[in-house]
Amino acid sequence: MNLANFFKPQKIAIIGASNNPSKIGRQILDNIIASHFRGKIFPINIKEKKIAGFKAYASLDDLKKQSLSKCLIIVAIPAPFVALEIERGAKLGAKNFIIISAGFKEAGSEGQKREEEIRAIAEKYKLNILGPNCLGFINNVNNFNASFSETTNTSGRLALVSQSGAIGSAVLDWLKEYNLGLAYFISLGNKAVLNENDFLQYLEKDKNVDAVVFYLEDILQGQEFVRTASQVAQKKPIIILLSGLSQAGEKLAFSHTGALAKESKVVEAALKRAGVIQIKHLNDLFNIILLLKNKAFYQTLSSKVSLITNAGGLAVLTADAIEKAGLELADNQDLLGDAQAQDYYQALSLKLKKKIKQNILVLLTPQTNTQPLQVAQAIVKVAASHSQSTIMATFVGGKTVSTAKRFLLENDIPVFSYPEQAINSLALVVKNQQARKGLQTFSKPIKKKKINYISKDYVALLKALKKYNFSVVPTWYYSSSNKINKFPIALKVVGPDFIHKTDKGGIILNIKNQNDLKKAVQKLKKDHSKYLKNKENKIVLQNQKMGDLELILGIKRDKNFGHVLLFGLGGIYAEALEETQLVLADLNRKSALKALKASHFFPIINGLRGKEFNIYALADALVNLCNLVAAHPEIKELDINPLLLTEKEAIVLDARVLTD
Amino acid sequence: MNLANFFKPQKIAIIGASNNPSKIGRQILDNIIASHFRGKIFPINIKEKKIAGFKAYASLDDLKKQSLSKCLIIVAIPAPFVALEIERGAKLGAKNFIIISAGFKEAGSEGQKREEEIRAIAEKYKLNILGPNCLGFINNVNNFNASFSETTNTSGRLALVSQSGAIGSAVLDWLKEYNLGLAYFISLGNKAVLNENDFLQYLEKDKNVDAVVFYLEDILQGQEFVRTASQVAQKKPIIILLSGLSQAGEKLAFSHTGALAKESKVVEAALKRAGVIQIKHLNDLFNIILLLKNKAFYQTLSSKVSLITNAGGLAVLTADAIEKAGLELADNQDLLGDAQAQDYYQALSLKLKKKIKQNILVLLTPQTNTQPLQVAQAIVKVAASHSQSTIMATFVGGKTVSTAKRFLLENDIPVFSYPEQAINSLALVVKNQQARKGLQTFSKPIKKKKINYISKDYVALLKALKKYNFSVVPTWYYSSSNKINKFPIALKVVGPDFIHKTDKGGIILNIKNQNDLKKAVQKLKKDHSKYLKNKENKIVLQNQKMGDLELILGIKRDKNFGHVLLFGLGGIYAEALEETQLVLADLNRKSALKALKASHFFPIINGLRGKEFNIYALADALVNLCNLVAAHPEIKELDINPLLLTEKEAIVLDARVLTD
Repeated sequence: MNLANFFKPQKIAIIGASNNPSKIGRQILDNIIASHFRGKIFPINIKEKKIAGFKAYASLDDLKKQSLSKCLIIVAIPAPFVALEIERGAKLGAKNFIIISAGFKEAGSEGQKREEEIRAIAEKYKLNILGPNCLGFINNVNNFNASFSETTNTSGRLALVSQSGAIGSAVLDWLKEYNLGLAYFISLGNKAVLNENDFLQYLEKDKNVDAVVFYLEDILQGQEFVRTASQVAQKKPIIILLSGLSQAGEKLAFSHTGALAKESKVVEAALKRAGVIQIKHLNDLFNIILLLKNKAFYQTLSSKVSLITNAGGLAVLTADAIEKAGLELADNQDLLGDAQAQDYYQALSLKLKKKIKQNILVLLTPQTNTQPLQVAQAIVKVAASHSQSTIMATFVGGKTVSTAKRFLLENDIPVFSYPEQAINSLALVVKNQQARKGLQTFSKPIKKKKINYISKDYVALLKALKKYNFSVVPTWYYSSSNKINKFPIALKVVGPDFIHKTDKGGIILNIKNQNDLKKAVQKLKKDHSKYLKNKENKIVLQNQKMGDLELILGIKRDKNFGHVLLFGLGGIYAEALEETQLVLADLNRKSALKALKASHFFPIINGLRGKEFNIYALADALVNLCNLVAAHPEIKELDINPLLLTEKEAIVLDARVLTD
Repeated sequence: MNLANFFKPQKIAIIGASNNPSKIGRQILDNIIASHFRGKIFPINIKEKKIAGFKAYASLDDLKKQSLSKCLIIVAIPAPFVALEIERGAKLGAKNFIIISAGFKEAGSEGQKREEEIRAIAEKYKLNILGPNCLGFINNVNNFNASFSETTNTSGRLALVSQSGAIGSAVLDWLKEYNLGLAYFISLGNKAVLNENDFLQYLEKDKNVDAVVFYLEDILQGQEFVRTASQVAQKKPIIILLSGLSQAGEKLAFSHTGALAKESKVVEAALKRAGVIQIKHLNDLFNIILLLKNKAFYQTLSSKVSLITNAGGLAVLTADAIEKAGLELADNQDLLGDAQAQDYYQALSLKLKKKIKQNILVLLTPQTNTQPLQVAQAIVKVAASHSQSTIMATFVGGKTVSTAKRFLLENDIPVFSYPEQAINSLALVVKNQQARKGLQTFSKPIKKKKINYISKDYVALLKALKKYNFSVVPTWYYSSSNKINKFPIALKVVGPDFIHKTDKGGIILNIKNQNDLKKAVQKLKKDHSKYLKNKENKIVLQNQKMGDLELILGIKRDKNFGHVLLFGLGGIYAEALEETQLVLADLNRKSALKALKASHFFPIINGLRGKEFNIYALADALVNLCNLVAAHPEIKELDINPLLLTEKEAIVLDARVLTD
């Protein structure tokens, strides 16, 4: 979608503009005027002749003589009348709309219908529509406030895209307190037409935007979003606070905006794949905005942090936070409790003289004769001439430090109330830089040629896996005429009644000769005579492989993000400890190895106490699984459990599939 | 120690009082005067005749005619002169001192010597000494500020005890901003004589104190502290922020105050046993002070939380936080973006009318025509007549909400900037209430009678374990004349060179008959001929027990907290996943079961997929281990690995011990 005319229109029509200052349509008009919009403005109101000094029009139809292709139409009238006006505008050639009005998807089934109607009109006429149920947007790059959030005329280099108007308002209010600004504020609302994807694509190319910050309650078109985000993230940091990841939260999100159900672990895997910074607390949203407002944090950052402090205890707490966050304490300079601004200035200057590129956190608590404001001024002074280093501050206290904190904020030094906030924000940025290094654009897996048919039949499924390059233990159905060349043998009953074979006594191991086999078959037939009457339950033989490491490998198709791979320790540990890892199914050998190395059980896979496992074989198994589902999108679920990992190979011992 | 005269002296002498207002001795004097101390004040200064209107004395010796037993002597002179003055005071009968001066343990070896000298004097004369290197204390209960922190004369019902003066100052500064107060502020400094234990004992009995909040960098006399804290916690919540738990932090803490090294997992186990709220972020220290200032939070609280909001998105985020914190969302009432104060008032009143006892969190972001201050007033009004419920608030934003937040704070409603802060603080209190229910006072294990000698010899050690009621698999040294009645047998080489038997090929399993045994012995003798020349390496035989669940059980003696038990999954998982649980070694069957149930692998122990294990036998094994170390304090480390858990029993298969 081309959003150039949406964000930089030459004309604006406001349906619902009014002479009543309490009306939202009027507030928006006032904001447009206050933000110095230079194009034509058409207030639309059936009753008025003039609004705020502009000629008012009774209807969009009165604008017939105007070309509306570069006109943004803002709709702030009751929901039942919205669709009509959109279509009216579309017929006049308008392409860009904001629907401020509520009363759509969030308001029950009737609203849902209205929203579908809007979507249909948009499709028919190829319209860009923001909302409904949103605050509009602010484009500070072009001095244009098309929202009913008060104009501040303070610009910045971050874009904030919020699905919730209220969260957006809160951030704007907080920014206003410190006279901080954004490049763009976009209130998504119900996302009937334009969504996070469209804006991410637009913001990717805007040179006035250094980073994009999202508050979302759901992600639409998951795979497409991962593709876009993983591409944008190669250039700019993307930060996402996604709510509704708990069961309770999801339920509320649905009633709030009708947000899609989501599996939190899948979403996390997707966002990780996209190379975005996923934050989990509202506090972090504010903290990371502070950090990324400052240009210095876009340079490649080290994971070491130096401290300068007037409080030893505070440095100790900060050191704890540094280690916990996976960063490293470089050094700490304790200026002691009576440190003056001059001491901070000298310490900071000297440190930066010795080393030009560092992360420095300046700590302060108010003690005897502490001069917080002067210290803040010293920091700002030093920072001004040392742009290669990142300088943050944490001033703990109340009244005594608040003016100093304000001064730092106004001078673009990220300052926090507690050391953990500074450290955790820095850690998010540092780790994200590492994750973005070598980040590849996600591509929805290209459908590959099927090599084999995927069958639910046990032996056939194992054979198919072999065709897709898996090592599979030799397995065949029992028949009395079987000739066995190699013992030991394992016997299993497979089929619909034997999903959990072990629990059901459906496995006999360690069969060492023909005689044992005969006995074992008799035992299984006797024990499970009832089930074996069902021809779908069958006895299979396998060359027995034991010992080594049992893993679980699986795939699941998520309706939003496509196929997702999971892997972890096998057996009871997998189920009880719930420690499987999830990754999107677009792995190659390199990214598969990376995923394995990042898993918390890598020490086991990597060979403990000298036991060596072939992790390359395991990585290949992951890749094989990706290839398999690319050829077989009909697979809903597939479990390989156990996958036996040995010194030499990763062998499938058992598998189960669920297809469309 | 009796601290009554320390906290409520009838006289005060200030060594280092001065007419120079920049001197700390003078600042303290001013604070004492400003806080309306009603007893006698003796400034001590060799040069002055009069200080701040009081007669000045050249030396403590000039007070000979005064009884000094109820005099608090405050010392604020250079470190080298301190010991002399303390002894001078002690000889005159003084018992209570504060050493403000720095230059002791924190200042290198000479300072360390000075501190030991002070400690020796204190022991000789049985003195109460706070510090050195501290700010003093503030006793707002009796209007007495014996510190150089500015007096606010605002009282509260919490006590804050801080090892770091700077952190203490920061909290005081923050409290001052909102005109909030404490009952006591105690700056511990170097803890040469009086430490956290002494003050906890004193505060336990003070009816003006509802809860005790600590910032500590180490805990001295660990077992004694756990005893005191577990006793106090039965009556009052104790909150501890302990820093220096990371390696980096510990190193800094040592250089800062010479804090003891500590193992973070052991400390956490100890604090858990003590029933205290361990917080890990400085932010939480401030948050929990807000919560516990309000009497309502001392009632037995439910783990359900109700929300009232004007912002759906904020409620979704809060619901996520609630679930993550282990609490439960009761319900959410969305008043929508245009909610007025009256709407909040009615919703809150109605909710409390329906149910008298609830946890309610009121959420607000500034939106169209939002009235934050009026909403705050509504909350305060409703809260005033509903003391059985807890009411918290989260107002997100900047300028627009700050006056409202101040109003809430001044009216004792805990208000936070972000929902996670409110929820996490509440969760800490709720969980602590549960942990304190039925909390028993920790007692340093009473030395029990030795039943058996603990030997490093493998077979002897297993026999000893049997004497202490463990089930132990029959085990004996190999001899060619052995007669085996029961197969299968396991063969092991044990001894100093076979700590990790499996890795070294020192184990042969599945020996099914006399012939196999002979071959296996030959193999071991051949493979390990070199090691077996050392007579301490020996071959043992065991009746083979296999399958089921392998656990690890161990004990370690911590120099601060005594014996600590650890248990977890056995084998490679224990080592690679590092998931062992730690508890102090004073378990009975009930607390042992509780510890097992709280472990994250309880689903496995508790029997997965219908597999039953005897968890009572496992609990008994934990108790046996406690009894064992009570009888054998000489045990430094003992590992039982594996302990085999079956349907019937918990059997020791292997053990290793390290004694003094």
